[in-house]
Amino acid sequence: MGLSSENVVSTLTPCLDRINDPQDLKALSRPELNALSVELRNEIIRIVSETGGHLGSSLGVIELTVALHAVFNAPVDKVIWDVSHQCYPHKVLTGRRDKMRTLRKRHGLSGFTRRRESAYDPFGAAHSSTSISAGLGFAVARELGADRGEVVCVIGDGAMSAGMAYEAMNNAGALGKRLFVILNDNTMSISPSTGAFSSYLSSLVAAGESDGLSQTMSNRCLFEHLGFEYHGPVDGHDLDTLLDKLTALKQDANGPVLLHCVTRKGAGYAYAEASEDKYHGVANFDVSSGQQVKTASKAPSYTKVFAKSLIAEAERDPRIVAITAAMATGTGIDLFQKAFPERSFDVGIAEQHAVTFAAGLAAGGMRPFCAIYSTFLQRAYDQIVHDVALQGLPVRFAIDRAGLVGADGPTHAGAFDVGFLCNLPGFTVMAAADEAELARMIATAARHDEGPIAFRYPRGEGTGAPIPECPEPLEIGKGRIVEHGTDVAILSFGARLEQCLIAHRMLARAGISATIADARFAKPLDKRLISDLIGRHRVVVTIEEGATGGFGALVLHHLADTGLLDGRCAIRSMTLPDSFIAQGSPEEMYEEAGLNAHQIAGFVREVWEKTKQRSTGETAEERV
Amino acid sequence: MGLSSENVVSTLTPCLDRINDPQDLKALSRPELNALSVELRNEIIRIVSETGGHLGSSLGVIELTVALHAVFNAPVDKVIWDVSHQCYPHKVLTGRRDKMRTLRKRHGLSGFTRRRESAYDPFGAAHSSTSISAGLGFAVARELGADRGEVVCVIGDGAMSAGMAYEAMNNAGALGKRLFVILNDNTMSISPSTGAFSSYLSSLVAAGESDGLSQTMSNRCLFEHLGFEYHGPVDGHDLDTLLDKLTALKQDANGPVLLHCVTRKGAGYAYAEASEDKYHGVANFDVSSGQQVKTASKAPSYTKVFAKSLIAEAERDPRIVAITAAMATGTGIDLFQKAFPERSFDVGIAEQHAVTFAAGLAAGGMRPFCAIYSTFLQRAYDQIVHDVALQGLPVRFAIDRAGLVGADGPTHAGAFDVGFLCNLPGFTVMAAADEAELARMIATAARHDEGPIAFRYPRGEGTGAPIPECPEPLEIGKGRIVEHGTDVAILSFGARLEQCLIAHRMLARAGISATIADARFAKPLDKRLISDLIGRHRVVVTIEEGATGGFGALVLHHLADTGLLDGRCAIRSMTLPDSFIAQGSPEEMYEEAGLNAHQIAGFVREVWEKTKQRSTGETAEERV
Repeated sequence: MGLSSENVVSTLTPCLDRINDPQDLKALSRPELNALSVELRNEIIRIVSETGGHLGSSLGVIELTVALHAVFNAPVDKVIWDVSHQCYPHKVLTGRRDKMRTLRKRHGLSGFTRRRESAYDPFGAAHSSTSISAGLGFAVARELGADRGEVVCVIGDGAMSAGMAYEAMNNAGALGKRLFVILNDNTMSISPSTGAFSSYLSSLVAAGESDGLSQTMSNRCLFEHLGFEYHGPVDGHDLDTLLDKLTALKQDANGPVLLHCVTRKGAGYAYAEASEDKYHGVANFDVSSGQQVKTASKAPSYTKVFAKSLIAEAERDPRIVAITAAMATGTGIDLFQKAFPERSFDVGIAEQHAVTFAAGLAAGGMRPFCAIYSTFLQRAYDQIVHDVALQGLPVRFAIDRAGLVGADGPTHAGAFDVGFLCNLPGFTVMAAADEAELARMIATAARHDEGPIAFRYPRGEGTGAPIPECPEPLEIGKGRIVEHGTDVAILSFGARLEQCLIAHRMLARAGISATIADARFAKPLDKRLISDLIGRHRVVVTIEEGATGGFGALVLHHLADTGLLDGRCAIRSMTLPDSFIAQGSPEEMYEEAGLNAHQIAGFVREVWEKTKQRSTGETAEERV
Repeated sequence: MGLSSENVVSTLTPCLDRINDPQDLKALSRPELNALSVELRNEIIRIVSETGGHLGSSLGVIELTVALHAVFNAPVDKVIWDVSHQCYPHKVLTGRRDKMRTLRKRHGLSGFTRRRESAYDPFGAAHSSTSISAGLGFAVARELGADRGEVVCVIGDGAMSAGMAYEAMNNAGALGKRLFVILNDNTMSISPSTGAFSSYLSSLVAAGESDGLSQTMSNRCLFEHLGFEYHGPVDGHDLDTLLDKLTALKQDANGPVLLHCVTRKGAGYAYAEASEDKYHGVANFDVSSGQQVKTASKAPSYTKVFAKSLIAEAERDPRIVAITAAMATGTGIDLFQKAFPERSFDVGIAEQHAVTFAAGLAAGGMRPFCAIYSTFLQRAYDQIVHDVALQGLPVRFAIDRAGLVGADGPTHAGAFDVGFLCNLPGFTVMAAADEAELARMIATAARHDEGPIAFRYPRGEGTGAPIPECPEPLEIGKGRIVEHGTDVAILSFGARLEQCLIAHRMLARAGISATIADARFAKPLDKRLISDLIGRHRVVVTIEEGATGGFGALVLHHLADTGLLDGRCAIRSMTLPDSFIAQGSPEEMYEEAGLNAHQIAGFVREVWEKTKQRSTGETAEERV
């Protein structure tokens, strides 16, 4: 293998400059393809040093990307990247090189594959472990005559820990259609992979290459048991081997085939290889020193406040345990892990199991905190319904990345959790307005044994609110008034409160006196607070960082139930709009969503002006 | 093995009569335990012949149940039954024998394990593949000192096709805690198991017994690769072997252990063994003849109408394919399978894969219909969001068992789908008011390539509505008025329409003229219809067979957005209440939910009476 890890970045790209689409790779000789790999790696380092993004995983698949596009014929042949944060070299080779500096920016290239972005992205991804299922769909569509071309799925060893990948292999193995799965084994998820399967892959690597001919049952590996022909392991940085192997497989395969490639995350960039997370997600950085440009933070991140508060609770209460699904660093459970290694569980990319495991822990007398991003919690919805809510088990859900998250875009938005949790009987659902509130919600959840409880909080840094030494638990179902006004009321659920307070000042300048309330709980609702706001204002607007069907819907349901929709007070709900918001900074995304301070103030003012036009004898509302 | 399949049912239960709880098994000799098994089997046949229920799976675990309770010490030791429809013999041996005739009836014993029902049910279930996750939770809680006792999970080969079971084994294998998993391999889900894993299990059975000592990597079986000690396969109807094996494992195990038991679904009752589904779920039956008591149906089932309509569409359109997740008979896909074997896919208990596989098929140019019960669709929520909705792929979701389903109880209620689908941008969501509407919705979905579309329909038989020969597609987002009235309006979404029409007649007798409308679509909403109803009536009530946050919430959001909540018309929404509705007949359950005709009429009348008390100059609403 010719790959050496060095930091010198060449600025010459004679081969790369000749690639406008993958067909141009066919004209290159083997030495040129090897040279192209070197150029491509340097190009990726250069680009990500300017844009930030998923560097480590992209560097790990440079040779694989070149080999796939040299051997297969995209876009007729479908190359499906699992998770797809490793797709940067693919994007460079498929006609998007000139746009790479717009990566993950508003109106720019997505950091993931995206069907709407390019014909070379046959199936978008961002969540893990979907590629084999999707690929099997294309393969079957081809066999039925609707589509044509080969199907190649590239999936990491971490993604293989998710049950969905196993379900797909189980089905693909039985259907027996021609389908290529490349196992990109770098022994990492974002953190090092966990689980028995990960150890098993290591043992396969230790055992050396197999040629897909292990015919006796007792000699077969796990993939063969599932109906795949197994090849490998091969060095995923050895381009010549990859080209030979893929060419041979393409020629010979007549069913599902798995090629086990061993790669190194961050390969070829010493600073990435040396880093603990292999530069999984990085900010802009200096190429020669590897130093990332970190903007000074004004306040601690919500994630860090969660970790610290949970550790403090766990010091007090030996029953507290923490569960994460391969997001230890993202959720702050890595810090908890250091403090309580025996009480911390990273179950791998396995949200379904994570939640029911937590339910079992709760049934066994523990106080489990299950820390999963909003968007990934969608993976465990049935387990939340069937194993947690139906049994009323006190699992605590710490829902990070609630609301819009920025550069990762719509696939990572935490838009639906409030809706899908609030509808479950017996659930308590909170959202933190700031990091001090988050600390109190953790204290509340730690002591809440009456049933499941969830609290959500956004990505990024807090507001700078001082965090109490010993956070006091909240009274369940009680909100608070933050600013007292007389004309209009804004009832906020979650971290838009900060924007509401800015809106409050804008409204004051326009002569409108606004009450600002923090609901804290979407369930149970603070009915007294709502009645109070309705009774004392001509306009009440609810606001949340989530889709329709959540907090605002519950308020409306409650008002309808109790006959309070009598028009004397105009009711409005501000939610995320009924569209997927494109990537950008969180601020840009919230502006597109119409939920920043200016927009809140403008909206409230507009409703207020309408109600004022009517005499006091009439209702606040007026029919159009 | 002493088990012979015969239909003679003894009425003598000398051993069984001595069992009040599992401790009583300890006093029995081996011959007595064998006799107990015979008595227990007869008892189960007798009971289910009177109550109906899950016979086949319970008969398959008679000896296993006796062995487990003879060897382990429940309730300190936890026996966790996966799915748990096989728990009838467990219930008989754990103090519930005298209540068995109330099985699956209102106020009676659940057909599944249930924590609230008995200390011997440490973890309830009904959905598949949760037991190992839950069991691992108990095992870890024990290691951390919060709990005590052994943990035994009994899981079927069908349940092993779900990724969740794999996720749990992957984690359990890595954690290495003492944990017993009994693989109850009867080669069946409800239908014969599908998938490569199923073939693999057959090969293990063919290879004969292994003693957990296969030390070289290349000789290990799949379970050993995942960190489990593998024992078996053993004859799951040979009680002596089971007793010996479990006793030995209990003595020796110091990590996760899997015992592979081969059983026969329906074992020991010839009519069950001979039946295609092994009497999976049966009505009351005559023991000596095996004849089930089927009540004459007045109309075809929704499931059958779905199957027939889809077959008709597929005859016209070669791009239509059908996907089911181990529910071929339940969803009617078994009929489609007969007509189009190449275009029908039973992927096993693997809802996550099913949905993304369907998304891949859609991306590949097919028109996939994904037929999954409402309650099981919860398993694929992230795939619906991330793979289908975000990419706008035209997957058709046929959602059977919408609303309350009867004897299977709250675990099987289809309560949340409208809420969790309607919040997704670009989704079209329909509900069928009757079987003729269902046929039209299938025609609508077949032609809808603009994005994902779902239609829901209840369990059981239709209303008898005549089904058109060539069902005409519906106009997207258009509802219909079924009865024209002047005082109040009821806007129904789904199959409560039949009850609304009865309520209409009740209201008429009380002198109240009611408009009855069928929304057909929850998304997009028929805004014109809603404005029309609001404008022309003093009361509008929405009604749906689902939880809050669904159709009614969207109507309320729309009215709030457009300033129509002005009090001139009183708005109410009737939904499933915020509680899990206990098992019973669907009629009993809907009565508990407050959604039958009488209750609808009563509620509407009450709101109407209140509005009438006010002069016409005032609003319809009155503040309390």
